[in-house]
Parts: sequence; C-alpha cells; structure tokens
Amino acid sequence: MVHVIPKILDQIKPHQVVVEVGSTKESLLEGLRSHPNRGRFVSSHPMAGTEYSGPEAAIPNLFDQKYTVLCETERSDPDAVELVERMFRSIPMKIARLDPASHDVHTAYISHISHISSFALALTVLSKEKDEGRIFELASSGFSSTVRLAKSSPDMWVPIFRQNRDNVLDVLDEHINQLSRFRSLLIKKDFDTFYQLIQEANSIRKIIS
Amino acid sequence: MVHVIPKILDQIKPHQVVVEVGSTKESLLEGLRSHPNRGRFVSSHPMAGTEYSGPEAAIPNLFDQKYTVLCETERSDPDAVELVERMFRSIPMKIARLDPASHDVHTAYISHISHISSFALALTVLSKEKDEGRIFELASSGFSSTVRLAKSSPDMWVPIFRQNRDNVLDVLDEHINQLSRFRSLLIKKDFDTFYQLIQEANSIRKIIS
Repeated sequence: MVHVIPKILDQIKPHQVVVEVGSTKESLLEGLRSHPNRGRFVSSHPMAGTEYSGPEAAIPNLFDQKYTVLCETERSDPDAVELVERMFRSIPMKIARLDPASHDVHTAYISHISHISSFALALTVLSKEKDEGRIFELASSGFSSTVRLAKSSPDMWVPIFRQNRDNVLDVLDEHINQLSRFRSLLIKKDFDTFYQLIQEANSIRKIIS
Repeated sequence: MVHVIPKILDQIKPHQVVVEVGSTKESLLEGLRSHPNRGRFVSSHPMAGTEYSGPEAAIPNLFDQKYTVLCETERSDPDAVELVERMFRSIPMKIARLDPASHDVHTAYISHISHISSFALALTVLSKEKDEGRIFELASSGFSSTVRLAKSSPDMWVPIFRQNRDNVLDVLDEHINQLSRFRSLLIKKDFDTFYQLIQEANSIRKIIS
C-alpha cells in the first residue's frame, strides 16, 4: 500500500475517492501527507475478519455491528469521508476515529499480539506432540479457540508485523513478562499469588462478552 | 480429590461404583493404587467445557461427540468400567484410554497451556490499555477468541496447575521460547524466517478444524 496508493492517487479524477482497509496506518499516512490528492483519500480499518483469506472465505454478516476505525479524517475531504462512512454504515458497521499512531498501538494490543501468541502456541504444541492423532482426539474447544488464529496467512500477517514492528515488540515483551511471572510462581509454588493473577485476568470479562 | 476419594472408597458397598471427572491424574491414581476398593473406582476426564463454571453455566450438547479419557482402567473392575463407559457413550461421548502420566503430559499441552497463555494475554492487555472503552470498541472476534479462556475460574484452575506443575512448567518454557524466537526475529527484522515460522504454525490446520 505504501508504494501503490501514491500511484493510484496520481491518476484519479477530482470527484473520485480512494479508500484503503489495511491493518497499520502510521507510515502509510505519513508517506501520503504531502500528496496533492490526499483529500480524495480515506484511511479505514474494518475490525472484522476470520483466520481464513480470499474470496472463498466470505461469510454472511461478517461486518454486522462491528467497528470500522477511520484515521486522520481531518486530511480527507468532507465529501470523501461522508461517502466512506455511508458505505460502512450500510454494511452495517459502526464508526470510530483514531489518530494513526494510536490506531497502531491499539491494534498491536488487541489484534497483532493475539496472532503472535496463537502462532507461538501452535508451534509449541506441534514441536512437542508428535502423536497428532492423540492431540486431535483430546483437544477441546478451549484449545481450538486459542490456536485458531494460528491458521492465519503469512502473506497477510508478515507485512503487518513489519509495519507495526515497534509496537508489536513492545507488547510482545510485556506478554513474555506476564508469562514469566506465571513461570516463576510455578517454580516457587506460590499458588496464592497465582490465584490472584488469575483473578486479575478474570476482569477481562468486563471487556469481552 | 486426593484427600476425599480415599474416604469415599472406604465407605462404599461392593456393588457401588465411584467415578471422578477431574483434570489431572498421576498423583491421584498413585495415591489410590493400594486402596482395597480401587477396583470400584473409575478415573475419567471428559474433554469438554467452557470458560464458565457452576450450574448456571450448563449448555445443551456440551459433550456431544467429544472425547472422554479413561485412565488406568486395568485397575478398575470390568463391570465398573463398563457402567462408566455406558454413561459417557449415552451423552453421547467417545472414549479414549491413556495411562495417567501420558494424560497429564497431553492435557498440559492441549489444555493447560492455552489457559496460562490466555490469562497472560489478558493481563498484558489490561496492564497497558487503560482506556477500556477503546479496547471494547476495537476488539474483534480474534482477540475475544484468544482471551476467552482468561475468564476461567481460579478455583478450578489453581488446583490443576498445582497438580500438574512439572508438565505445565515444561510446556510453558517451550511456549516462552517460541515467543522469544518471534521477538528476536522482529528485532533482527528477519521477516523471511518470520514468514516460515507462520507457515509452520499454519500446519495446526491439520489438527484443529
């Protein structure tokens, strides 16, 4: 997108609108800031998807009542923003606005780290469990739900990790720290603190339904 | 269970059967090995559940076509095993058999580590994201699926981690290693190897549907 969108914006007519729906914003939008047709461009991120890619992965109601983030709309022409908003609301999605830097930080936390965690968990299990039939038999829905994102395509995700590397590293460090806390509590057999940490983690209930 | 089951077995009549449905087996079954009524006891683990606990968490068809693991059935009387098998098959569940040590290793890999990973991920996000409304708006189904197990009860899980501590530590170390590999590839900007790791992780597709 960083390379292609400027070329597209070079060629559009004044009434046309270009919208992008990618997963990272900061470097893309910084690169476009001085483009003469920046006003005809709208940056968006529909927060919806599955672990599957391509046309055959289409499912009904994927976008229904989910959020689309619009970024840096103050640099887009009002009529272009209005058109794009109307498009998303008709799916029907809800609209949120974030500046590009905040968008990239937040998505690192609520999307990108989940994927790295799933990829790593899949590799963990695959590396130790040779008897795949046994896993298959025993794996319950909890396991499937945690590693489901590990089916996601590298073609989609490597560019995201490349673009959002610094934020992803920051949250990945925090995640490794949290796992290391659990590890050291197990080593010390400090199950009282272990209990408290799980209780703290439980407060995620307030956030996801 | 380690303390209560011997007392129950002390009191049963010869035709009665005691079945347990807990998540770890090795120390429990070792403690019962010399009990005079060991034959009337059947150890099982129905591999099904949700992140919710208690009677109000009941859902229809929870066990339908899932596996129950029976452990150390060679020490149970054949009629007791038959009764328990009939019970599970009528739910209707499928039956697998594992020795207690293998059971505890496999469940560490396909259930216990998923929970620690989810607890840690919830703490990661909660510790960094203060603006909870923002998470809520943006969190897509991928995030929810990865942290869903973080809603699980510490009353249920702390005893599991206590009993299966050594196996859980082993798999937790492996998981932290895998995350650290991703971390060091990000630091080195080695996105080719990153791509390969994701492709390897994708082979989990063969295992979970």
